[in-house]
Amino acid sequence: MKKKLLFLLLGLCVLLVTVSSVQADPLPSWNDGAAKRSIIEFVAKVTKKGGPDFVQSADRIAVFDNDGTLWAEQPFCFQLQFVMDRVRSLAPQHPDWKEKQPFKAVLENDQKALSASGLQGLDELLMATHAGITTEEFEQIVKNWLATARHPTLKRRYLELAYQPMLELLEYLRQNDFRVFIVSGGGIEFMRTFSEKLYGIPPEQVIGSSIVTRYEVRNGRPVLVREPKLDFFDDKEGKPVAINKFIGRRPIAAFGNSDGDFQMLEWVTASSGARFGLLIHHDDAGREFAYDRDVPAGKLDRGLNEAKMRGWTVVSMKNDWKKVFPSK
Amino acid sequence: MKKKLLFLLLGLCVLLVTVSSVQADPLPSWNDGAAKRSIIEFVAKVTKKGGPDFVQSADRIAVFDNDGTLWAEQPFCFQLQFVMDRVRSLAPQHPDWKEKQPFKAVLENDQKALSASGLQGLDELLMATHAGITTEEFEQIVKNWLATARHPTLKRRYLELAYQPMLELLEYLRQNDFRVFIVSGGGIEFMRTFSEKLYGIPPEQVIGSSIVTRYEVRNGRPVLVREPKLDFFDDKEGKPVAINKFIGRRPIAAFGNSDGDFQMLEWVTASSGARFGLLIHHDDAGREFAYDRDVPAGKLDRGLNEAKMRGWTVVSMKNDWKKVFPSK
Repeated sequence: MKKKLLFLLLGLCVLLVTVSSVQADPLPSWNDGAAKRSIIEFVAKVTKKGGPDFVQSADRIAVFDNDGTLWAEQPFCFQLQFVMDRVRSLAPQHPDWKEKQPFKAVLENDQKALSASGLQGLDELLMATHAGITTEEFEQIVKNWLATARHPTLKRRYLELAYQPMLELLEYLRQNDFRVFIVSGGGIEFMRTFSEKLYGIPPEQVIGSSIVTRYEVRNGRPVLVREPKLDFFDDKEGKPVAINKFIGRRPIAAFGNSDGDFQMLEWVTASSGARFGLLIHHDDAGREFAYDRDVPAGKLDRGLNEAKMRGWTVVSMKNDWKKVFPSK
Repeated sequence: MKKKLLFLLLGLCVLLVTVSSVQADPLPSWNDGAAKRSIIEFVAKVTKKGGPDFVQSADRIAVFDNDGTLWAEQPFCFQLQFVMDRVRSLAPQHPDWKEKQPFKAVLENDQKALSASGLQGLDELLMATHAGITTEEFEQIVKNWLATARHPTLKRRYLELAYQPMLELLEYLRQNDFRVFIVSGGGIEFMRTFSEKLYGIPPEQVIGSSIVTRYEVRNGRPVLVREPKLDFFDDKEGKPVAINKFIGRRPIAAFGNSDGDFQMLEWVTASSGARFGLLIHHDDAGREFAYDRDVPAGKLDRGLNEAKMRGWTVVSMKNDWKKVFPSK
């Protein structure tokens, strides 16, 4: 009699667990619709043992752009915001910056002069704020900035500006034995200061743009010094190149939001087997920002034109997402 | 009564499992001695929960050089052997090579002329055999070579020339939740063709020297083309630089065999906490090769001088290893 009761209870438990796992929505901040369905169908296909599209865990690799895909990127990508804050905080040590472009433009908040300084100006700002220090010093500076700075219009800390639906997607993929990598034009060491805390993505799964570092022994203590020289720009054609170099196998899913991600999606979805490409369309001026074809940074034009033909999912932030940012 | 018997049986099983796991030697090809003891003590320390040197699994990262550390590297590193075999097989398509150095030297097996061609000659040979093809084509060529070529004096296939004691060490570390990376001067894409099969090390955990690759869409199909231009040389000071770039956190153990690994060991063992550095000393002319201070490639001089002072383990292949290569 006791035994029967035990089996009955056990059966009930199994039933409850099964029912709850079937019913729990892994993507609660996504509205039901084609985008959400395409994600869930893809994951179901590649994890179905014995199915025609089954992919073993080791090959379940998904790559995500960061700026505009995992967190916001307007009015500037956040690393540029860091650059400008850093110029302001370093200004007392560089009295000449008051009269010297592009630093003058930053200190006077002169957007026109800043734009006029172009890529050359941006490079100067980047190197003045990112180089000449050790990797450990840089990490600490970025962490301090993230702990104190706030987004100019959204008024949140930057680490509060990851997209809630994307955080759920990362977790959903991990629960299905995917390994998730960031592949971003942003700085690799900049992103690594927060990727684990914010996204649960460890440093060895973060790929980005880099500057040259140099090994040096200072008073018997080895350090890596950040040099004012670009090592690699991880954007557009650079993304498949970096994926091949860092990961050495082709991912089966790619997520982006701009034409800077086009080649990454193209590379990932061109190989045989079940593959998945997704672009986030920023069409939500009310809750975030609306931009696509006509912006200099984060431009999405070719991707919008070709997504349908290539079988890529396009996410409308406005229609597909119940909420954009996590509740505070 | 039945219950008692069940518990007795269960207890016996636990006892058996415990005894067998205590008694099983994780490094059976290592002689008992200081080197083996230092490895086992280090692993015990960092995995002892609650102990002063405990390291969480995510940070249990170990880096291994490849040539001379995981497999043999004499009379030339095997990738150079590949280069020479490849020159011979491409020669019919390049009739001019018969009269053109350094190709002539390879075709005539003229070691003196080959040495005389120096680094410039080596670079020409590398580019002629490694570039101008896609990453997929290169992978196939290397795999075909590994399946057919044999070591000139040891008469084994190259994949039979990994060191048995090191294969056991890799497995022992993995069983203790380490993640093992290769960090080698060898070509990253060359090593990735066999690292998983031979060492159980997946492509994303292989770091090496690289040439530039270029993304290109050929008849609608994207490919990565290998360009005849060095991207990164992963040796000496380059090793800590590459570790920082690819892994983004500092390993806790480093294994090498030459002064090309010096900075890697220095970088790894300089940080605080329990750290481990190990150098393999090739002193076994009978079973493998004997070389250290006086060879151009694989030279171990500064490492031998400073190992003791730095607390690094030096392995004598002759005295510390019961066997060198796996049984056939």
